[in-house]
Amino acid sequence: MTSIHTERRVSLSEIEALARDVLLARGVSFAQADAVARNVTAAEADECRSHGVYRLIGYVRAVVSGKADGRAVPSMTQVSPAIIRVDAGRGFAPLANEIARPALVAAAQSLGIAVLAINNCYHNSAMWVDLEPLADAGLVSIGMTAGQCTVAPHGGSKPVFGTNPFAFGWPRPDGAPFVFDFATSAAARGEIELHQRAGKSIPLGWAVDAEGRPTTDPAVGLAGAMLPFGGHKGTALALMIELLAGPMIGDLTSQESFAEDEGMGSPPLGGELIIAFDPVRFLGDDFAGHMARAETLFSSISGQDGVRLPGDRRLEARAQSVQNGVLVPARLLEELELLRAGGGGRG
Amino acid sequence: MTSIHTERRVSLSEIEALARDVLLARGVSFAQADAVARNVTAAEADECRSHGVYRLIGYVRAVVSGKADGRAVPSMTQVSPAIIRVDAGRGFAPLANEIARPALVAAAQSLGIAVLAINNCYHNSAMWVDLEPLADAGLVSIGMTAGQCTVAPHGGSKPVFGTNPFAFGWPRPDGAPFVFDFATSAAARGEIELHQRAGKSIPLGWAVDAEGRPTTDPAVGLAGAMLPFGGHKGTALALMIELLAGPMIGDLTSQESFAEDEGMGSPPLGGELIIAFDPVRFLGDDFAGHMARAETLFSSISGQDGVRLPGDRRLEARAQSVQNGVLVPARLLEELELLRAGGGGRG
Repeated sequence: MTSIHTERRVSLSEIEALARDVLLARGVSFAQADAVARNVTAAEADECRSHGVYRLIGYVRAVVSGKADGRAVPSMTQVSPAIIRVDAGRGFAPLANEIARPALVAAAQSLGIAVLAINNCYHNSAMWVDLEPLADAGLVSIGMTAGQCTVAPHGGSKPVFGTNPFAFGWPRPDGAPFVFDFATSAAARGEIELHQRAGKSIPLGWAVDAEGRPTTDPAVGLAGAMLPFGGHKGTALALMIELLAGPMIGDLTSQESFAEDEGMGSPPLGGELIIAFDPVRFLGDDFAGHMARAETLFSSISGQDGVRLPGDRRLEARAQSVQNGVLVPARLLEELELLRAGGGGRG
Repeated sequence: MTSIHTERRVSLSEIEALARDVLLARGVSFAQADAVARNVTAAEADECRSHGVYRLIGYVRAVVSGKADGRAVPSMTQVSPAIIRVDAGRGFAPLANEIARPALVAAAQSLGIAVLAINNCYHNSAMWVDLEPLADAGLVSIGMTAGQCTVAPHGGSKPVFGTNPFAFGWPRPDGAPFVFDFATSAAARGEIELHQRAGKSIPLGWAVDAEGRPTTDPAVGLAGAMLPFGGHKGTALALMIELLAGPMIGDLTSQESFAEDEGMGSPPLGGELIIAFDPVRFLGDDFAGHMARAETLFSSISGQDGVRLPGDRRLEARAQSVQNGVLVPARLLEELELLRAGGGGRG
């Protein structure tokens, strides 16, 4: 048996083909599989392993259980000149985003601000991948989604929030846009799962057991409750995300998504909200000068010893990955090759 | 001389009259003075002392120094059907908000989402006061502003951010809306100043000295740099606020605002951004049912031992204050009475 520490180097095109094939082998449509494959490949390229090919196991589980519809065709509605709504039809987030993006960009360019509400969607992917193309189109954006019900409020013990990621994108005049994406939990659930797979303990502050007591055991934390980052302020932000990406757009809270899953362990079903701004509409002729002031701000942060801009590590990893491919745990690759061949897949 | 620990009980109407008179005595226009007076009174009523009448000293300083224009008449422009812009003319935020609010509400009701960009404004007040009336009008909202350059990025030592408050409002079918408002610094600057006035030390993690070393001395921390809450995630959020309420709307970053102040210690000059959503436009006929699901979420949080909803403490304090008035440090009242009589005021 392969050691859990063995890794293999794989090119990005191999990663993308493997991801697509794994999903196609489970009857997922080409459009859904291709969009997911590009998303997990982007995550691997940026060394966001917790959102990389590892996530395919969850995608497969969602399809095999019958919870997700791997052949869903997202349906878009223009609710108002500023609101684009997509019913993802219990399919996956990447395709819903791709289909809606041109309408979102057009609405934001027309009005200066527009919003995309994706409903009825399995969101199992890194959110910065949803925002980066908006920044490439010159738009500023904010994205959020709820998730599996795993995070207790500060001071409590019962999970009510998902990891509720919050992402932000900003176009930069030269080079890659500035995009950050963080879980409002102290750690991403995927990070705790990877600690569990690697047999490592987790830092205090990431999770509590079922009675609300601190734990360093990833299994105990996953069975108990994760904690928000930043105490009561992180809790407030998580609650805002629940409300905006849930009830405000007519979609599930994390608690409701958990109930809907009936213990199958699928990725979370629910909504995603993206707000897009066109800075050109705010700034007019002064656009370039104001964007240059933002660059001064970036420099005054990254110019400090010991400080990096959020996302910089990802961009450096990406440059390496394009050249050299990425390292993937050999055991995970074996598991995925089995899935590609039509085996495994009970989750 | 009055002990710094002595407090006097004052009614809310006395607070409001005192605040207005203090500003009128410095030549501030009735409209600006009245809006500020209602804002600081609301903060006192909710026991947000750091944003209460104590702030009048900063308002007076800004007017006396000639930095702020106490007689400014805010000027509103509809940039697009979804963007309302107000040039505050170096006046104060409360009046700019009041003047723009009807247009913001109308735009959000029409399109489902709209944005208010206030420029050229001295923001020295609690931001939840700006959002509560939007929630009373049935709108969901997000507000943010930059501020005095006092907060270093996580891992750094040089201030680049303001305390960069972030606020969120959500209408509730019964009773007061849900509104939170937190500084993205570990503590509000006003809290550190109040510790200094009271001769108390500050907790570790609030601030570093000029070389980036941890400190518990409020004076040393105010001279060095405050820290963001939540490490690199709080830092990312602070940076987002700088960009959105600064360059994106053509206004100053905290660093630029600091340079503009020329060491006068005025409240920060800059922008304020408010995004307003009309949930009715997102939810249509299902509005009531989805808002009821939000209430279930609130209950599952406040129903846990040891957990309170953000803002609950304020609402409880408000109910008491309306009945019994509020306690204000006697020394501060003496200082304000001197200002009311036309004395003091060099800051």
